[in-house]
Amino acid sequence: MIRVIILGAGNVAKHLYTAFYNQKSVEVVQCYNRKGLPLHPDQKENTIIQDFSALQEADIYILAVSDDAIEEVSNLLPFTNKLIVHTSGSVPMNALANTNKRGVFYPLQTFSKDKTVDFSTIPFCLEAENETDLMLLKELSTTLSNKVYEISSEQRNILHVSAVFVNNFTNYLFSTANDICNEHDVPFEILHPLILETAQKITKMNPDLAQTGPGIRNDSKTINRHLKIITDTTQQELYKTLTKAIQSKYGKKL
Amino acid sequence: MIRVIILGAGNVAKHLYTAFYNQKSVEVVQCYNRKGLPLHPDQKENTIIQDFSALQEADIYILAVSDDAIEEVSNLLPFTNKLIVHTSGSVPMNALANTNKRGVFYPLQTFSKDKTVDFSTIPFCLEAENETDLMLLKELSTTLSNKVYEISSEQRNILHVSAVFVNNFTNYLFSTANDICNEHDVPFEILHPLILETAQKITKMNPDLAQTGPGIRNDSKTINRHLKIITDTTQQELYKTLTKAIQSKYGKKL
Repeated sequence: MIRVIILGAGNVAKHLYTAFYNQKSVEVVQCYNRKGLPLHPDQKENTIIQDFSALQEADIYILAVSDDAIEEVSNLLPFTNKLIVHTSGSVPMNALANTNKRGVFYPLQTFSKDKTVDFSTIPFCLEAENETDLMLLKELSTTLSNKVYEISSEQRNILHVSAVFVNNFTNYLFSTANDICNEHDVPFEILHPLILETAQKITKMNPDLAQTGPGIRNDSKTINRHLKIITDTTQQELYKTLTKAIQSKYGKKL
Repeated sequence: MIRVIILGAGNVAKHLYTAFYNQKSVEVVQCYNRKGLPLHPDQKENTIIQDFSALQEADIYILAVSDDAIEEVSNLLPFTNKLIVHTSGSVPMNALANTNKRGVFYPLQTFSKDKTVDFSTIPFCLEAENETDLMLLKELSTTLSNKVYEISSEQRNILHVSAVFVNNFTNYLFSTANDICNEHDVPFEILHPLILETAQKITKMNPDLAQTGPGIRNDSKTINRHLKIITDTTQQELYKTLTKAIQSKYGKKL
């Protein structure tokens, strides 16, 4: 049995609590957050604490707090030499106070408040200062997922910037297409199957081989027609920048 | 029974042939292409023609040829007053020769050579000069899919430019992330679940509500750290343009 304490009350904290709640080999001993909020409707009241001094013994203390709070919270813990981990993609492991044994337990996924999370498909990126702690984090991760990776703070940074491209920027492209459709009374839902297929394709094919469209075809007739359809200057700039980037990468020029 | 003739030998022609092949209510009478290639290993030889003069009677002639060839091929057809349709997202219906009755039969999806297509999830965007032909195209589409839309040439243009954003540009973002990961020996596959979830989310949530990341959070510390990690100038420009666009759309500035 791995005894865990979760600190924080955000999406990651809540989804992790719910996931561990159903695991026989994991016990969430306590949850700490400033407001004393439960992480789950079924959580027992006596496992919710608002005071660091009430923290009990555990094998792993998971700091599922915002990036900016990680260092501060790690410095407020009233014990030493325990395993404390954060769950952030962008904060280095050594941002944690060195009074405890440090690690990272980063589930690489986008978490929404109201959407159930299937952890079995989520990659866990782990890091620890020593092999014993790394093994314990692996044991904890594999209760939820079989996609477990040992990732250094430097590599995690690379993953984080890459995630901005494939998640934040991609979503912005979806929002732009949504705006263009709405402006002309075309139902955006017609594009849903294309969006899903574009994503699914990438799990089976190198993105360079999946690249299509007027940019890589050097189809200036279509590009110019599209630029006339788009009237918003930000959307136009985005279209030009991406088309130029595609042409520059795949060796063709306007 | 709808009698169909397919002209062309590209991905769309092949996938449509395969899809119709299994439909009891559709008969693909003939297939035309210059080289006389079969569209399917099981296709009977006597249904493959290389000469327009050999074209038989059919209810619908589907010109699944490249955008540039649509007008030319439609002018070479040795008959008049038949229903001819093209399958392009970007070519107006009236690019087809007006010696025949014209229409559009546009399956909005990205087709790959070697990947099986499930047409039941694909939206068909239809257009025709008259109601009778439109009804026939609807009948043909519904043998394959229940997502059938009546879309004008103008609306199709809007869908086509939007498809460039959600498919071509999105794939380019995936390829950029793939490059960044490869350069630093991080397995790109770790990002697959995030990519799939980003796409799936959009089918249930407005993209504006799904927007997250350092751009919308105005998190200049993370943005600057990312810009230091990215060394390629095209990637940097792309990161800056997209971040600026996100901040401009959601009302926050650097």
